[in-house]
Amino acid sequence: PPRPPQPPGLPLAPCRSFSNNKIQVELDESSGVATMKFKSPPVNSLSLEFLTEFSISLEKLENNRACRGVIITSALPKIFSSGLDITEMCGKSMEHYTEFWRAVQEMWLRLYGSSMVTVAAVNGSSPAGGCLVALSCDYRIMAENPKFSIGLNEAQLGIVAPFWFKDTFVNVVGHRIAERSLQLGSLHPAPEARKLGLVDELVPEEKLMEKAAAVMAQWLALPDHARQLTKTMMRKAVLDRLVAHREEDIKNFITFISKESIQKSLRKYMEMLKKRK
Amino acid sequence: PPRPPQPPGLPLAPCRSFSNNKIQVELDESSGVATMKFKSPPVNSLSLEFLTEFSISLEKLENNRACRGVIITSALPKIFSSGLDITEMCGKSMEHYTEFWRAVQEMWLRLYGSSMVTVAAVNGSSPAGGCLVALSCDYRIMAENPKFSIGLNEAQLGIVAPFWFKDTFVNVVGHRIAERSLQLGSLHPAPEARKLGLVDELVPEEKLMEKAAAVMAQWLALPDHARQLTKTMMRKAVLDRLVAHREEDIKNFITFISKESIQKSLRKYMEMLKKRK
Amino acid sequence: PPRPPQPPGLPLAPCRSFSNNKIQVELDESSGVATMKFKSPPVNSLSLEFLTEFSISLEKLENNRACRGVIITSALPKIFSSGLDITEMCGKSMEHYTEFWRAVQEMWLRLYGSSMVTVAAVNGSSPAGGCLVALSCDYRIMAENPKFSIGLNEAQLGIVAPFWFKDTFVNVVGHRIAERSLQLGSLHPAPEARKLGLVDELVPEEKLMEKAAAVMAQWLALPDHARQLTKTMMRKAVLDRLVAHREEDIKNFITFISKESIQKSLRKYMEMLKKRK
Repeated sequence: PPRPPQPPGLPLAPCRSFSNNKIQVELDESSGVATMKFKSPPVNSLSLEFLTEFSISLEKLENNRACRGVIITSALPKIFSSGLDITEMCGKSMEHYTEFWRAVQEMWLRLYGSSMVTVAAVNGSSPAGGCLVALSCDYRIMAENPKFSIGLNEAQLGIVAPFWFKDTFVNVVGHRIAERSLQLGSLHPAPEARKLGLVDELVPEEKLMEKAAAVMAQWLALPDHARQLTKTMMRKAVLDRLVAHREEDIKNFITFISKESIQKSLRKYMEMLKKRK
Repeated sequence: PPRPPQPPGLPLAPCRSFSNNKIQVELDESSGVATMKFKSPPVNSLSLEFLTEFSISLEKLENNRACRGVIITSALPKIFSSGLDITEMCGKSMEHYTEFWRAVQEMWLRLYGSSMVTVAAVNGSSPAGGCLVALSCDYRIMAENPKFSIGLNEAQLGIVAPFWFKDTFVNVVGHRIAERSLQLGSLHPAPEARKLGLVDELVPEEKLMEKAAAVMAQWLALPDHARQLTKTMMRKAVLDRLVAHREEDIKNFITFISKESIQKSLRKYMEMLKKRK
Repeated sequence: PPRPPQPPGLPLAPCRSFSNNKIQVELDESSGVATMKFKSPPVNSLSLEFLTEFSISLEKLENNRACRGVIITSALPKIFSSGLDITEMCGKSMEHYTEFWRAVQEMWLRLYGSSMVTVAAVNGSSPAGGCLVALSCDYRIMAENPKFSIGLNEAQLGIVAPFWFKDTFVNVVGHRIAERSLQLGSLHPAPEARKLGLVDELVPEEKLMEKAAAVMAQWLALPDHARQLTKTMMRKAVLDRLVAHREEDIKNFITFISKESIQKSLRKYMEMLKKRK
């Protein structure tokens, strides 16, 4: 597999690669930096299988003392992740919905609460759950392509972002921008996303991984322990809120998703997506 | 009465007008958009009568399935609303103060918690309670006239904005800007208000209603149900706080307003206003 | 002692000076404005003695009806305050740590909760606890010298800013900027600090005290009572949080600071500082 970018002048480091189906993970043990590349065509949908693999990969890295940071990006062109896989929410059993939603929660709890430094290298569009992945990292760099957009656009599909998507969003962009963007289900082109603070910086697409490595090095210059405790202090309230209401949140999701009106609007949306191909 | 602006090319829609004393309400049933025009000379003070009519009008529209959004503006030149009517707070009985304050609360609970899309077309100055009305909408467009100003300037009168004015303000501009602006009782000229995020955009006064209609159309493009649930998610904590402390808040208001020092400073302010005419 | 700057044209006012060791306090009774100058060479470290004197001085002014506002600045060149005195946290007894931490809390409770108008005239660098002093004021003016920097850089030393440092920071710059800056332990050069909202404005160093006096006059133009109640409304939640968890916070500090790894990293840092001289 291709190696992650290395600062010039450094010797090539031993590099361990995990074999996975939907996410390619490479750990550069010399720098302590792992790279996670989403490679689930056509659009890196967050299916149950994808989410499970994502959580397991995060857990493995979290428990690996050689790993201190993760860069998350996409191996596919033009798309970072299209968000939750709608087929998992359509015409399935209650048991399936429960399992799926628990996997969405699990992924977020692991990523938002990760003790590693997490940098999103957003090299394509990133709607809904894809946006949540980016928002949950410590730093977001996006390719400066105005055709790429990012946002929590759930409202456009007739569904509502759960409270912990909202909490994560508010922590990044503040209450006012979140209120407006969530109600309109806005997908913000990269330049606008930068202006709103949804992403931290834009760089030309070909410089994205290089920049991500540089940012990562800056964050890793800090002593891990103090940085981790600080991160926990900033994020604990929002993490605890989901932990405290996890079963209730699953129940809410199932009640909502099981409504015939919602099922109908999701089916309509899926048909639209199929026609687009 | 003059008709609200219509997108070009649409047939003229049936338009229902409510007869009111202080607020002119027109509902365009084809677009689902109502226009509320404050017309209580000289300065659209929020008197008990005005507030009661405002709440009843909002309730009527809320219960009218043909109505999905409201544009709030002023029928008077240069002033959106001068805020709470000081004569209602000066030399009156405890019963009157109670009734008045409950009406202020009621108006805010209805407006901030409205399930309709609410757009403020701020076509004049908007101090204190007038600013609260604008802050409680989903979107604020202001005439780009630097002579028009907006802000919660209560501190300048020697009084204190109640906690739910403050909560609404913080949700729009953030803690720091709110802290400074409230302590100084600042009235921000339109360009500064835009810069602080107190209003969302400025347009030339003659384009204000056209712009408000365009913004409304953008918000109404979203499915109502998802948008409403999202709005509730964003605003519920702040709404619930007043609901939980409503009687206490009335009691606080009465205790404060009954102080001789406050009464004196309000009388002084009223005399100053009279002389200005 | 040199007199605080006076608006031109005003007669020289009676001026009372408190005798202190580490902080020079002058009260201009005609304007109601006190000036506090930190003069504890070499770097205005917040030692136990300094903090005790700071709190007593604040208390004296608070209880002096002739005093309505305080300008806080440094009498030393290039440094506002270097923050908590590390020698107080290194190789001392539990009793000493307890006394020291209580003094840090006490200073912040008095300053952040002061009913006076507090303006920081930041005329030099201001890391860690020095930054907290500035953040706790009502308004921050900084000398526009890019060599001066400000920030809560605790993480760089391997320690963690306590939750009430964090709460104060979030109230000024918002959650996102605080999260990033605290994790990186960033020291922001003056121009960047202005951009992030960490300070309110920059002026040339020689205009700093003049500007501080002008800002103070603007804030004092408001009636004290309304301004004070407004300030309390904005800051009470964060103040109450420390009051409710004060003993627990002391215990946390002691447990943390007593760790051999932390002691080691503080000793290392002190040696580095000594070599720098």
